[in-house]
Amino acid sequence: MKIKHIIEARQFERKWLEKELFPLAKEMEEIAKRGGSDVLKEKKMISFFYEPSTRTRCSFEAAMTLLSGRVIFSTENARQFSSAAKGETLEDTIRILNGYYPDVIVLRYDKEGGAKIAAQFSSVPIINAGDGTGEHPTQALLDIYTIQKELGKIDGISIAMVGDLARGRTVHSLSYLLGQFSNIKIYFVSPKSLKMKDEIKEYLKKQNIIFSEETDLKKVASLVDVIYQTRIQKERGSMLKDSEGFYIVNQEILNLMKKEAMIMHPLPRLDEISPDVDKDPRAAYFRQAENGLYVRMALLKMMLS
Amino acid sequence: MKIKHIIEARQFERKWLEKELFPLAKEMEEIAKRGGSDVLKEKKMISFFYEPSTRTRCSFEAAMTLLSGRVIFSTENARQFSSAAKGETLEDTIRILNGYYPDVIVLRYDKEGGAKIAAQFSSVPIINAGDGTGEHPTQALLDIYTIQKELGKIDGISIAMVGDLARGRTVHSLSYLLGQFSNIKIYFVSPKSLKMKDEIKEYLKKQNIIFSEETDLKKVASLVDVIYQTRIQKERGSMLKDSEGFYIVNQEILNLMKKEAMIMHPLPRLDEISPDVDKDPRAAYFRQAENGLYVRMALLKMMLS
Amino acid sequence: MKIKHIIEARQFERKWLEKELFPLAKEMEEIAKRGGSDVLKEKKMISFFYEPSTRTRCSFEAAMTLLSGRVIFSTENARQFSSAAKGETLEDTIRILNGYYPDVIVLRYDKEGGAKIAAQFSSVPIINAGDGTGEHPTQALLDIYTIQKELGKIDGISIAMVGDLARGRTVHSLSYLLGQFSNIKIYFVSPKSLKMKDEIKEYLKKQNIIFSEETDLKKVASLVDVIYQTRIQKERGSMLKDSEGFYIVNQEILNLMKKEAMIMHPLPRLDEISPDVDKDPRAAYFRQAENGLYVRMALLKMMLS
Repeated sequence: MKIKHIIEARQFERKWLEKELFPLAKEMEEIAKRGGSDVLKEKKMISFFYEPSTRTRCSFEAAMTLLSGRVIFSTENARQFSSAAKGETLEDTIRILNGYYPDVIVLRYDKEGGAKIAAQFSSVPIINAGDGTGEHPTQALLDIYTIQKELGKIDGISIAMVGDLARGRTVHSLSYLLGQFSNIKIYFVSPKSLKMKDEIKEYLKKQNIIFSEETDLKKVASLVDVIYQTRIQKERGSMLKDSEGFYIVNQEILNLMKKEAMIMHPLPRLDEISPDVDKDPRAAYFRQAENGLYVRMALLKMMLS
Repeated sequence: MKIKHIIEARQFERKWLEKELFPLAKEMEEIAKRGGSDVLKEKKMISFFYEPSTRTRCSFEAAMTLLSGRVIFSTENARQFSSAAKGETLEDTIRILNGYYPDVIVLRYDKEGGAKIAAQFSSVPIINAGDGTGEHPTQALLDIYTIQKELGKIDGISIAMVGDLARGRTVHSLSYLLGQFSNIKIYFVSPKSLKMKDEIKEYLKKQNIIFSEETDLKKVASLVDVIYQTRIQKERGSMLKDSEGFYIVNQEILNLMKKEAMIMHPLPRLDEISPDVDKDPRAAYFRQAENGLYVRMALLKMMLS
Repeated sequence: MKIKHIIEARQFERKWLEKELFPLAKEMEEIAKRGGSDVLKEKKMISFFYEPSTRTRCSFEAAMTLLSGRVIFSTENARQFSSAAKGETLEDTIRILNGYYPDVIVLRYDKEGGAKIAAQFSSVPIINAGDGTGEHPTQALLDIYTIQKELGKIDGISIAMVGDLARGRTVHSLSYLLGQFSNIKIYFVSPKSLKMKDEIKEYLKKQNIIFSEETDLKKVASLVDVIYQTRIQKERGSMLKDSEGFYIVNQEILNLMKKEAMIMHPLPRLDEISPDVDKDPRAAYFRQAENGLYVRMALLKMMLS
């Protein structure tokens, strides 16, 4: 499968994940440990971010550099410091950036659908690095790669997705990918006001994925192979009622979990995982972030070389 | 002509434009399409911007990269994030930057005259990338190159400059360049409160350029080879009276225009050009932006190699 | 001495300064004048700044580039534009950045102790580029190198440190370094409300360094080899009482100073040095800033090659 743009998790098929992405990401890890390669020499990236980011922007730029590509332009707050501040539309911005001979544009936009619009106006490949409450497909790819790498399989796993499921784009995108595997069991654990979107639940039904909606993490913790914890998206406005609690992964939850289970988090975390969990071997979230580098190196290599 | 600094459009003579800049910009377009050259290998640029920019900063950094030069430092909002935030004068900042061995400093400043001051304190070449309501000479160079490229000539053309002529620095700088050509006819189309500066009108009289001041774009549209539309500079405060309208280039204006005419705009645009104009072959503004890359590559090559 | 992290001025011994840093900084000056070297080819830096900076960030990035290293990621306002804006702890951020294969992380943090915390969680070398009101050790190293270079010696000099001695981190760090030399005499000249920290005065006593606390710069100006002027740190809140004046180095002070003395300032300066002092050969502050480049090149070479 030749990839032109990366817009949404749905565009990726299981076969491509298993035959192309996972082996190449593994190879990229070895290349990174050896200090990089020059496979993307002369290739040029534009990083265009309308919202704050460390992990995503840094890992894309580091990935490009490790493969000897160049970042020809990087803006970390396009909303404030680029022509967007003067009211330019995304369409116009993308057309202009196309004129500067990039080989790829990595775009984080602040509204759902941004990457799709950008791709319509771009002859240069667009990578969606998050579009508001929409999708964050490269995060989903690194998430599913992490599950495969840590557990050795994806078919048959049970996973609890925990927290702000209404607005967390990472859990949306990951659900789409898991929908292609077999015997998956998903527990959506959230306050009632932040339940998983209907659109995704309908997709999972169609894919014959078993899921249930829960409100009590303790009830679920002992049952799953993966706890995928997420952050309350305070910057998108509080939808949480005062009476509703939130979930914290701490020693108590760890004690309930299976020995071979793992804890994931897209990071950054605030208080929803206690720091004393970090040293437990099941805490996979820092390894997960590191995998982001390898997956992004793999994607760039596939798209540009 | 050896160029030390690029400060204002006035410093460029017709002969240099025709014999040096235009042919080199054309050559640079071919080099860009071939993937670049290494003519500026080891050369180092500092991008120092006190005001938001996408096009200008990105095209300079992309130009440098395409010629294998390096951007050793880039700040997109020096007013807020550099020592300027602590109150340092431009003079001191420039002296300091000189100590870091750049080969060129690209400077956008937020007040008129910034580039001239910078040049006085810099042994390293300064390129004015816009100084408040002052000048934006590289924009003027790409504008006049675009006219030459699209129409095949500059002598004898008629042009309507439209919009905020009082504060739009691109129309000021372009007027200075056009003043060196023959049989030019300029229509300054603006609300009464945003008329072209006297200083520029006096210069044009001295150069024997015929111009008239108009308020009705429809009256002028059928007469000209170029409509140069500009943006209301809202970020510089509104000087427009409520009773005054603004100008929009739309299908109605297109229908009035000559078949071989062209529409320019320094971009970003807001509502002053309807999106449905974009697909008309006379809409030259995206090609104009692209020419910015070639002109800046040419300037960097001339100054640094 | 092999350096792992650079956290505080105290970690450097006189012998290392004289035998390693000073000769290498001198060599780096020659290399910079020749256009650089490729000693750090393939080496990768992350610049992570939580507070505004021009000089420090630019000189580190320029230093890296001159030695053919690469800056793989640079953020100029991490507090606002990185995951720190979402509340991520410094510990987590540093762990994540470690996963992107940098060879060094240059960190400016907005609270005292940031670099020390970062070093605890980083297997990659951390360079403290300023931590709030804490330390700024590479500034201290360039300061002491400048004294050595300008005066030809450090033992036996007398120096007036002037201004906001309570909060100015450069004077704290420089005091620690001077404490290792012999026959130093320090005059701390400050308003009563901004006197030098007790902690540093106790250290100097232990080191047998003679110092006195003064309020009148004119009284001291004729006695010293170095006036080290500093800036009022307005961004850290005013601690100055209305009745207290401040100090200005102007023609009057110059007239009092010895012929072979020198004026230093970490820059940026506001009004505390009159611009007409700049042309006096004793005004060493722009040379001091330039030395920052050579010292940082030397440090990067020592740590990374």
